[in-house]
Amino acid sequence: MQIAIVLYDRFTALDAVGPYETLGRHPDAEVVFVAERTGPVRTDSGSLALIADKTLAEVPDPDIVVVPGGPGQTPQMENEALLDWIRTADATSTWTTSVCTGSLLLAAAGLLQGRRATSHWLALDELKRFGAEPTGERVVTDGKYVTAAGVSSGIDMGLALLGRISGDVVAQAVQLGIEYDPRPPYDAGSPQKAPADVVELIRSMSRFILGTEPTT
Amino acid sequence: MQIAIVLYDRFTALDAVGPYETLGRHPDAEVVFVAERTGPVRTDSGSLALIADKTLAEVPDPDIVVVPGGPGQTPQMENEALLDWIRTADATSTWTTSVCTGSLLLAAAGLLQGRRATSHWLALDELKRFGAEPTGERVVTDGKYVTAAGVSSGIDMGLALLGRISGDVVAQAVQLGIEYDPRPPYDAGSPQKAPADVVELIRSMSRFILGTEPTT
Repeated sequence: MQIAIVLYDRFTALDAVGPYETLGRHPDAEVVFVAERTGPVRTDSGSLALIADKTLAEVPDPDIVVVPGGPGQTPQMENEALLDWIRTADATSTWTTSVCTGSLLLAAAGLLQGRRATSHWLALDELKRFGAEPTGERVVTDGKYVTAAGVSSGIDMGLALLGRISGDVVAQAVQLGIEYDPRPPYDAGSPQKAPADVVELIRSMSRFILGTEPTT
Repeated sequence: MQIAIVLYDRFTALDAVGPYETLGRHPDAEVVFVAERTGPVRTDSGSLALIADKTLAEVPDPDIVVVPGGPGQTPQMENEALLDWIRTADATSTWTTSVCTGSLLLAAAGLLQGRRATSHWLALDELKRFGAEPTGERVVTDGKYVTAAGVSSGIDMGLALLGRISGDVVAQAVQLGIEYDPRPPYDAGSPQKAPADVVELIRSMSRFILGTEPTT
């Protein structure tokens, strides 16, 4: 079961690493990090690089596609080479997935037309421009398309999809292996729960998260 | 505020990326990934590499030390170059931290003698060999030493320490930015909660997590 995780300049590391540490621990997984060119790909902060081991062209037909988000997603919306690869890979994939604003790339590739989907909470309305129907859920499955909300939600998405593919015992074992028994020190992980001033603070900084200003 | 995140062969990616995406988002953070040699460092699965941008020697006195765990931790327990660096960096650090079996490296460096600490649930008893007092908490702070439980707990640790350093608003803003509103699809993230057969399954596979058999 080949899982291709797509990297591009200024992606968000946890968007990629969450599915990698969960879905990627499927006993038969062959995870491959792919990008237009092999070699280091810098994350949004600039202080970390992950290695792309294969080019997109070398991995034409993965079983599962994972597209992370991050501020670097915005310029990729006009990168036809990447969008073409997503469309081609999707034509034969079993599952096509995204984390955070990665769903906007699936949408820009034309894959989410008329489908329920999610994204980072700041980017939900952007999905509508591409004919997708945004939901407030953390993980949304519509047919073979599985989209997750912001950054950390890729962990929940990876476990949920792993359970669907391999059954509850395998997914629970991975959850226990990574000791995923979350205890956030605050209850501020969604705009509905966070204090209003914190929500405003993040809205004011949204270009660092989305790479662009939100449309709402 | 310089944050040094240590990499070594066969570390676990999320152990490093959790603190990076939380603590590392402090407005004044300068995050640097360090290793004995610069360049790609492969994770436990072999399918991912992160880049170490600096050698240990180039980063002698970070404000915060972060030591991840993973099956590659075992051979590092006898790597005096790494243990010496940990001791030297700790001599001037404001905080010395670990995720998962990274605490065993802090312990082997002699830093946790007589201190409360935690680790991956499979490795808790190992801490006793070094005079530390293991606890079942997810994040343990004893003086300037902050240790976190298995793999994913580095996210909680990073947010908790960020709150301590920068105040609640900054930590809540980071939590909201990464949309950390966890919704695990199962409640199997600790040995107390997971089904007994799942706990046994992971115990039987513990060498892939710890790099060694558990002592209990």
